Amino acid sequence: MNTILILHGPNLNLLGAREPNVYGRVTLVEINRRLEKLGAELGVKIETFQSNHEGELIDQLHHTKAAAVVLNAGALTHYSYALRDAIAGVPFPIVEVHLSNIAARAEAWRHHSVIAPVCAGSIAGFGPLSYELGLRAALNLIQSSTEK
Amino acid sequence: MNTILILHGPNLNLLGAREPNVYGRVTLVEINRRLEKLGAELGVKIETFQSNHEGELIDQLHHTKAAAVVLNAGALTHYSYALRDAIAGVPFPIVEVHLSNIAARAEAWRHHSVIAPVCAGSIAGFGPLSYELGLRAALNLIQSSTEK
Amino acid sequence: MNTILILHGPNLNLLGAREPNVYGRVTLVEINRRLEKLGAELGVKIETFQSNHEGELIDQLHHTKAAAVVLNAGALTHYSYALRDAIAGVPFPIVEVHLSNIAARAEAWRHHSVIAPVCAGSIAGFGPLSYELGLRAALNLIQSSTEK
Amino acid sequence: MNTILILHGPNLNLLGAREPNVYGRVTLVEINRRLEKLGAELGVKIETFQSNHEGELIDQLHHTKAAAVVLNAGALTHYSYALRDAIAGVPFPIVEVHLSNIAARAEAWRHHSVIAPVCAGSIAGFGPLSYELGLRAALNLIQSSTEK
Amino acid sequence: MNTILILHGPNLNLLGAREPNVYGRVTLVEINRRLEKLGAELGVKIETFQSNHEGELIDQLHHTKAAAVVLNAGALTHYSYALRDAIAGVPFPIVEVHLSNIAARAEAWRHHSVIAPVCAGSIAGFGPLSYELGLRAALNLIQSSTEK
Amino acid sequence: MNTILILHGPNLNLLGAREPNVYGRVTLVEINRRLEKLGAELGVKIETFQSNHEGELIDQLHHTKAAAVVLNAGALTHYSYALRDAIAGVPFPIVEVHLSNIAARAEAWRHHSVIAPVCAGSIAGFGPLSYELGLRAALNLIQSSTEK
Amino acid sequence: MNTILILHGPNLNLLGAREPNVYGRVTLVEINRRLEKLGAELGVKIETFQSNHEGELIDQLHHTKAAAVVLNAGALTHYSYALRDAIAGVPFPIVEVHLSNIAARAEAWRHHSVIAPVCAGSIAGFGPLSYELGLRAALNLIQSSTEK
Amino acid sequence: MNTILILHGPNLNLLGAREPNVYGRVTLVEINRRLEKLGAELGVKIETFQSNHEGELIDQLHHTKAAAVVLNAGALTHYSYALRDAIAGVPFPIVEVHLSNIAARAEAWRHHSVIAPVCAGSIAGFGPLSYELGLRAALNLIQSSTEK
Amino acid sequence: MNTILILHGPNLNLLGAREPNVYGRVTLVEINRRLEKLGAELGVKIETFQSNHEGELIDQLHHTKAAAVVLNAGALTHYSYALRDAIAGVPFPIVEVHLSNIAARAEAWRHHSVIAPVCAGSIAGFGPLSYELGLRAALNLIQSSTEK
Amino acid sequence: MNTILILHGPNLNLLGAREPNVYGRVTLVEINRRLEKLGAELGVKIETFQSNHEGELIDQLHHTKAAAVVLNAGALTHYSYALRDAIAGVPFPIVEVHLSNIAARAEAWRHHSVIAPVCAGSIAGFGPLSYELGLRAALNLIQSSTEK
Amino acid sequence: MNTILILHGPNLNLLGAREPNVYGRVTLVEINRRLEKLGAELGVKIETFQSNHEGELIDQLHHTKAAAVVLNAGALTHYSYALRDAIAGVPFPIVEVHLSNIAARAEAWRHHSVIAPVCAGSIAGFGPLSYELGLRAALNLIQSSTEK
Amino acid sequence: MNTILILHGPNLNLLGAREPNVYGRVTLVEINRRLEKLGAELGVKIETFQSNHEGELIDQLHHTKAAAVVLNAGALTHYSYALRDAIAGVPFPIVEVHLSNIAARAEAWRHHSVIAPVCAGSIAGFGPLSYELGLRAALNLIQSSTEK
Repeated sequence: MNTILILHGPNLNLLGAREPNVYGRVTLVEINRRLEKLGAELGVKIETFQSNHEGELIDQLHHTKAAAVVLNAGALTHYSYALRDAIAGVPFPIVEVHLSNIAARAEAWRHHSVIAPVCAGSIAGFGPLSYELGLRAALNLIQSSTEK
Repeated sequence: MNTILILHGPNLNLLGAREPNVYGRVTLVEINRRLEKLGAELGVKIETFQSNHEGELIDQLHHTKAAAVVLNAGALTHYSYALRDAIAGVPFPIVEVHLSNIAARAEAWRHHSVIAPVCAGSIAGFGPLSYELGLRAALNLIQSSTEK
Repeated sequence: MNTILILHGPNLNLLGAREPNVYGRVTLVEINRRLEKLGAELGVKIETFQSNHEGELIDQLHHTKAAAVVLNAGALTHYSYALRDAIAGVPFPIVEVHLSNIAARAEAWRHHSVIAPVCAGSIAGFGPLSYELGLRAALNLIQSSTEK
Repeated sequence: MNTILILHGPNLNLLGAREPNVYGRVTLVEINRRLEKLGAELGVKIETFQSNHEGELIDQLHHTKAAAVVLNAGALTHYSYALRDAIAGVPFPIVEVHLSNIAARAEAWRHHSVIAPVCAGSIAGFGPLSYELGLRAALNLIQSSTEK
Repeated sequence: MNTILILHGPNLNLLGAREPNVYGRVTLVEINRRLEKLGAELGVKIETFQSNHEGELIDQLHHTKAAAVVLNAGALTHYSYALRDAIAGVPFPIVEVHLSNIAARAEAWRHHSVIAPVCAGSIAGFGPLSYELGLRAALNLIQSSTEK
Repeated sequence: MNTILILHGPNLNLLGAREPNVYGRVTLVEINRRLEKLGAELGVKIETFQSNHEGELIDQLHHTKAAAVVLNAGALTHYSYALRDAIAGVPFPIVEVHLSNIAARAEAWRHHSVIAPVCAGSIAGFGPLSYELGLRAALNLIQSSTEK
Repeated sequence: MNTILILHGPNLNLLGAREPNVYGRVTLVEINRRLEKLGAELGVKIETFQSNHEGELIDQLHHTKAAAVVLNAGALTHYSYALRDAIAGVPFPIVEVHLSNIAARAEAWRHHSVIAPVCAGSIAGFGPLSYELGLRAALNLIQSSTEK
Repeated sequence: MNTILILHGPNLNLLGAREPNVYGRVTLVEINRRLEKLGAELGVKIETFQSNHEGELIDQLHHTKAAAVVLNAGALTHYSYALRDAIAGVPFPIVEVHLSNIAARAEAWRHHSVIAPVCAGSIAGFGPLSYELGLRAALNLIQSSTEK
Repeated sequence: MNTILILHGPNLNLLGAREPNVYGRVTLVEINRRLEKLGAELGVKIETFQSNHEGELIDQLHHTKAAAVVLNAGALTHYSYALRDAIAGVPFPIVEVHLSNIAARAEAWRHHSVIAPVCAGSIAGFGPLSYELGLRAALNLIQSSTEK
Repeated sequence: MNTILILHGPNLNLLGAREPNVYGRVTLVEINRRLEKLGAELGVKIETFQSNHEGELIDQLHHTKAAAVVLNAGALTHYSYALRDAIAGVPFPIVEVHLSNIAARAEAWRHHSVIAPVCAGSIAGFGPLSYELGLRAALNLIQSSTEK
Repeated sequence: MNTILILHGPNLNLLGAREPNVYGRVTLVEINRRLEKLGAELGVKIETFQSNHEGELIDQLHHTKAAAVVLNAGALTHYSYALRDAIAGVPFPIVEVHLSNIAARAEAWRHHSVIAPVCAGSIAGFGPLSYELGLRAALNLIQSSTEK
Repeated sequence: MNTILILHGPNLNLLGAREPNVYGRVTLVEINRRLEKLGAELGVKIETFQSNHEGELIDQLHHTKAAAVVLNAGALTHYSYALRDAIAGVPFPIVEVHLSNIAARAEAWRHHSVIAPVCAGSIAGFGPLSYELGLRAALNLIQSSTEK
């Protein structure tokens, strides 16, 4: 059975409490629980990890045994070239997800993702559903590459 | 039973033949068929429409009876403020989808979507699966707004 | 008796319903009716035309028999160099009008009009009154050129 | 009876003499006279003021008893954030007018108005008629706010 | 016998009448006639088509049976990424032509062509001769690819 | 006993009335009174001056006998290089203060101060307290230079 | 009794030794001691923390029990959107301080703070006094919010 | 006998005292005296005027009887479009002079003069000699235009 | 009999050997021979000159007796304003040619030609055929100017 | 005997496995071994350290006893102003090295190093040899400063 | 007796013939003769040199025995950093002159001089008089440095 | 025995005399002598060439028999696309060297090298040692390519 790692970046531990008008009222624990439930339905094992440290997220990518990663890099999305290079340097596919529609946010710097070019694809704007769609996409990517 | 309109922009009629290294070998007919099948599973009616004319796409958005739209605007994504204003002007949610990971494309102008800020969310990079995830997202948006 | 063409661009058919906080609650039919009434007062015939198609607007400019045009190009204002060249290519004056104060809108791209440099002048921000002032300006331009 | 202040910025005292190919041969005295005549027709009192001093224009805005202002800020249009803040800080509507079509002028800096976003609306390119249309707009704004 | 399609974009139907100091006094009918004559000399069939509608130009590119296209896209040259993608999506060579030297025009936006990178080559500045040189180039491209 | 000049730029005379959601409801008279009271506590004489005229603010800087200045330059902050050169040309320290957090304002031009590089330091965002902190800073700068 | 956290970012542990012509000769220990002394005078408890790790600074912000924070983010000021989002995500006010006048520094990137828009206000250029003024501002913000 | 007006902008009254490493130790009085002496040699009357007020400089340009002007606009050089329009609006030639070599100054904004395009020519970098060369140039311009 | 000068800029002597995937395998000698042959057919004398020295190319333009020039300026195309001014300064027409489609090249600086605005027109992307089309265009320009 | 610290930034632990077409097949262990061997030849002790954490790299710079550092900062090269300030804050020389020629990489952001201005010098593009040259340069810098 | 070198850059040999509406009808020979005459009056020897080759101009600067140089670098003004470094590398003062007012020219690239920052000062816009004023300035610079 | 060409660009003949605070006091003769000595140690023949003429440097690259080149292009580094194309057009490796750390220089244009992308690698900031490291790198590149 394949494992998919759900990787959460800085400040996502605050979900539910932080700026709920932007990020909603669902907590990270609830999101992880939903993903585990969906993983069970789809026949894939779910691991989850959150950190506010860029270096720990990179370490996770280097050391994980997962077959694919669903990544919400938080604000690191917009400047962490080190995270970008970690993504480019690992052999498994990574799906970028965002809770909010980053293209619709007021700050111009949120409109640009430095990790998007090395991810398999991106999903943004659907709240917790973004993660669930990301999980489906990740699973599909594993299956496609297995079929080849 | 809700209807979801799948709206395809310029040049998508060439799918399967056009630049297959970028867009794959699946044709538009096959994509539409897959979506109709998934729609049937999820209990939603699917309508599909393709045009190379900006004005016809806007007209469709104005006149459709659908509860949500899954839109691949093709290259209009990058400059059609008229399409953007049509999206902003209609009351139902629109999900932006792209076959390729537009952030990873070589041309800088492909990295920016002028319609993203007024869509509910965006999905890019998963080939025909982008449409399927878009359909799931659209259905979820209809259900959420109905629940409120 | 001179004719003045009132030309409405994309999405203006939605007026009254679309984003009423920005564009107000007056419909396009009502605006046209007011202009016809004012035209009658000022002794000028009014023709009106709306399209969501850039090409149809250009065709209208090429084929109209009007002595002047009052043009609200909608979002085409901001990128349609083809419309701009059509304006530059016809011999009669064109007055640019906008319902909202485009300089005060949140999106930066709304602050720039690619057609303004080839119009006789511009009027923006007064709601339906913008059209009425535009009609007065157009009539004045016809009269000035006749006097010469 | 309402009063409308016509406020003229730097160098407009030279009108008629200065660059007549751009600004025409009508003098400021003649423009003021036409506006007084039109004001009489429309039932509104006209006051006029010209200064080459940014500070005096701001002082006028702070101290006037007028119900609305028609403002041709001259070249201050393009850089005077102090004038802009004065406009934002007073409670009555201000209509921006320009004799020439500033979007069609050769110098790029003339294409951008720093005061437009805080004015009610803008009128440019119709020569002295710009002021007359501005006066109609100002009067309309007073009447609308009174009706509410 | 090969066919070459001559495709004319927006406003080119006005040729001869429109801004003759820029575009000259030769009409589109005359240009087409010259090209048909030159085609006869060079042993190639000439088809011609003009439209002010971006969508119709794209449709033509999708449906033509021509072995090559000589394209003057008019102002669409500068913003129509949809036209650009249509060019990239068809298998035959396309030669970009312009009557005027677009690099020498006053407006900065005329200096950049969004379709040039996917055309075989470009010819600009020689008036109607640009089309004739474009026809020679198109024929040469057909012959080269046939020789391979 | 040292004197510190409190210098207020354009539109600050409107404080309390102007845009109270941005600038609060405290008037300039009240701010000056608080500063005089704090000055008395700290053993320094306070002089205050407000003008909407750039030239008068420069003249004040040239002619004041104060040992330091607390300056809120209003909108001149963002473009008055003449004021900047006046600051650079006088031998006493100047502390820049702003009521609002200019970095958090919506308009991009408010984020840049052309006078900051030649002021001793800057304080922004604390309402009337900004002035009081500025007064403490100014006094500290006088004392430091005296100690040397 | 309220607690105020003084948070020091990367390289501030080198203070007194590092580039003393820019940052002065006072050490971080001395700055902390002065703040503790001032805190005692003002009736507020002072906690201090320094780290060269972005993640640890974010963790501190998430976990502190302080009523306000005085933050010198060091060079993270200029690029750490993750720190910025942490500030936006916590409910207490944060005062940005800098020892040097960052607007006067030679490097252009030092002139822009990505955290300023979400801090309550900013103080820069007064050496160790910047922290003391920041402490006064933080205390004032606590008191204002308590009064409401 | 012709008169040449020497017009000095903001902060030039501080010459000799202000930033002597940049502007030298010669005072404005001495510069004016040298110019009067040179004027006497060259047979031209010299008038001099200094102001820190943009409006007064514009008023001087409008009202002077001089046949030419030598203008050091100080920092207004870099942003005063109102001064620029005054220069463009008067019929006599104006020579721009600067004491320092503005192209060699550290601040980027000093490298651009908004008045240069409408002056007859510019002289910068020679200290007080810049004015003397400017006087010779102005006289030459008067003589050339008289000769025609 | 008219003479047309074929002028080749830096590195074109390497043709055939240098980057053949970009520039093809035809040598400069072969190109010159083809042009001489075509010239003979068209009744015009061909002179050819190549240099890696900007100054020598300028000297050639100043001293040639040719009635027109076909110029491939190589990389000087992108920065040699001195060459540009030489072109503007000579009285005969110059046709710009490029072997490759410079708009399609990867490096952004290749997309802009500083000499294009002062050439009669430009031809790019057809390999050695670009020169032949350029020769036809040059001859046509000579004939047109003779006819006038 | 002097010590030189070889400091490797994020993702360099993946060397040999990660993107071998860009970074080659030599592992970090092998590079360290070669450097230790070269260090032995040159009479200098080599220490090596790798981390994916910006904070740990800064801590190393603060605490090392080395006389010089050879630093490959990985992707932190392009945005870590905190690392830059750490380099500026320590008293020993630091040599920047890169395996690949960063100026030749496809991504524009790789062309700019924020740490280069505060390093002694830079070496890029020679694969593992870059480190060896960097070691020679570092040793030379130690010797030069000892000689003074 | 001091020598001053008058150095003329590319295309200045065409003076009188080339674009006389911009550069006038005076030839380079005449300009040199006037300068020799003025030099005789002022007691300084004049040498003159013109070249279209950047390298020869640099060689001249390296090898001249002149005490100062008056330099019209032609179009090299705008891009020749090699000429700029030559100027910075020689010990005598260099005065930049231009016949036309480069700030008033239509092309944006003419507004920026890359050599101005390392010249003593600049004079532009006065036709041949620019050289004469430049000669006076150069002589003054020699005398000032001798006096010290 | 292989030959390595040391190629020096404009103004490097002034070394030792020119701006010694930037470039040091070692002369070009001494640098060449050191390189010849190091070449002898490493078993490679050294040739050296300096020119202030771009064209001569290009000619050298075209005609040299060397197996590799060490190139200090001086200021041509920053704009000579012709030199860049010469480097791209020759089959042997070229190592870019600079005496100073160009990334640390005050002028922004020094931070960008237009030749770096086509060189094998770059070394900057180590004074004459940069050349010696460059020689080692060049030799290594010859040996690597021979081994293949």
